[in-house]
Amino acid sequence: MVSTLVEKIKKTNAPICVGLDPMLDYIPKQLIDDAIKEVGEFSLKAAAEAVLKYNMALIDATYDLIPSVKPQIAMYEQFGLPGVKAFKKTVKYAKKKGLVVIGDVKRGDIGSTSKAYATGHLGKVMLGDKAFAGFDEDFATVNPYLGTDGIKPFIEACNEFNKGIFILVKTSNPSSGEFQDRILQDTGKPLYEEVGAKVAAWASESMDGDYSNVGAVVGATYPEMGKVLRDIMPKSYILVPGYGAQGGKGSDLKPFFNADGLGAVVNSSRGIIAAYKQEKYAKYGEANFADAARAAVIDMREDIKAGVGL
Amino acid sequence: MVSTLVEKIKKTNAPICVGLDPMLDYIPKQLIDDAIKEVGEFSLKAAAEAVLKYNMALIDATYDLIPSVKPQIAMYEQFGLPGVKAFKKTVKYAKKKGLVVIGDVKRGDIGSTSKAYATGHLGKVMLGDKAFAGFDEDFATVNPYLGTDGIKPFIEACNEFNKGIFILVKTSNPSSGEFQDRILQDTGKPLYEEVGAKVAAWASESMDGDYSNVGAVVGATYPEMGKVLRDIMPKSYILVPGYGAQGGKGSDLKPFFNADGLGAVVNSSRGIIAAYKQEKYAKYGEANFADAARAAVIDMREDIKAGVGL
Repeated sequence: MVSTLVEKIKKTNAPICVGLDPMLDYIPKQLIDDAIKEVGEFSLKAAAEAVLKYNMALIDATYDLIPSVKPQIAMYEQFGLPGVKAFKKTVKYAKKKGLVVIGDVKRGDIGSTSKAYATGHLGKVMLGDKAFAGFDEDFATVNPYLGTDGIKPFIEACNEFNKGIFILVKTSNPSSGEFQDRILQDTGKPLYEEVGAKVAAWASESMDGDYSNVGAVVGATYPEMGKVLRDIMPKSYILVPGYGAQGGKGSDLKPFFNADGLGAVVNSSRGIIAAYKQEKYAKYGEANFADAARAAVIDMREDIKAGVGL
Repeated sequence: MVSTLVEKIKKTNAPICVGLDPMLDYIPKQLIDDAIKEVGEFSLKAAAEAVLKYNMALIDATYDLIPSVKPQIAMYEQFGLPGVKAFKKTVKYAKKKGLVVIGDVKRGDIGSTSKAYATGHLGKVMLGDKAFAGFDEDFATVNPYLGTDGIKPFIEACNEFNKGIFILVKTSNPSSGEFQDRILQDTGKPLYEEVGAKVAAWASESMDGDYSNVGAVVGATYPEMGKVLRDIMPKSYILVPGYGAQGGKGSDLKPFFNADGLGAVVNSSRGIIAAYKQEKYAKYGEANFADAARAAVIDMREDIKAGVGL
């Protein structure tokens, strides 16, 4: 699967992932009103319908410019079952438009339980003699805290179903250092480097072209650590959150890329999907939120090109 | 919420949680055939229907003996949307029967994303002037890898909606030590103790009677570590997986309890819900799987009583 992502990144010349993390207050009032009218009341179903319509408009306005989108499942789970249904429909719609879909699900458990997550998000379950896909994303994000037992079933799903994963290594948030940055006594190095070293080992079990289906998440907000981790995990694509609204800039991104100009895909959520709320894109107005998103994608692409020297 | 759990544990004299982790090959063929007949084909919907019926029979056969159940959402997500619907219905049915429901969802993200997970699983979302619950479990399990940013929104949900969480500290699986057991340079102690110390601090922010709504997960397979963690987190309930099928015995459990005979709730999944597959309970036969589960619950209760000295 990573070879497909690489191909699309080369084609668009935009190592970008648009985060489809639809907070209700990002969604234009008209879309919400339409959904309430359609459903008959302001319910979870109406909220989920508004989310789906919002996503579809964002995808329509940007899919020719970008290789991938990353729906954050938490934003859908908050609306219960109708929300999860909107997640699934968003995945399907984005794939139909030719986008690589990274399910930001941060799942992780042990043994048969991790296998069930991997089956649900990346694989297929056999019922009688037929195979059924649950959510069918292309990539899923995975939490490493439980160790190899939790990761192996995902790698097996990557190999069986041509899928990929991004394992959390160093997250973009302020308190990510509480555990991730702690120095280990035996290596004298931080935990995130140890996790990075494991990612590199796991990556060798699912190569697909020059890169591995086993990637990593490293926040744009920590470029120095990104540089170290880039070297530790040479074959892993790095999914880089934290650009834009969280403070990461194009000039911070260079360390996350390899010399071949590949190796990283940078996510922006709010900065793109709610661009119309920024002063810079206010001229588009709420009704033209999708055009504002398109303009923000173009600006992000140029900012990354300049910052990284692509 | 923890005070409700404590009350039910005292009433049943059984610090037990039945793990509703329905692997398809645990479910008697008759239930699957019935579901296929009802739905018309062997599909995700039929699988989910069989899972729900299986769970309902297990709950009916055990609810008067136990305080709590723990559905593992991965086992439902593997069946896609119909599976997630069966999860929601299982939660609702168990609550109707008076059980405390621990959603084993192992969620964890940052800031607004963790808030969305907390809303979806424990809280309510406001739509207009009405509040809607998504999945509405009583407790959720949470992954700590992202630090305080990821945990705080869950604690806020605990306080606002009278709910609880169990934070992964030391998991029951063989490779849990890869990261969790690493010795930190500054403290000279393993990472799981550091996570445990954080849990103790977070616990102080959501007290409910003698215990906190912020609990911890520590595997039965590591009783020595359980003893240390018991002391570090005196106010936190410990959810103990790994009993039974994973190798933990009643005599291993004493370290997880406080001197008051409280402080731990022990989970068994396969050992209860698929008891009929064990030689010991084979006499019940596949058709009486729920009676076998009831017998296994009684045996587990007595094993824990003897092992812990309750």
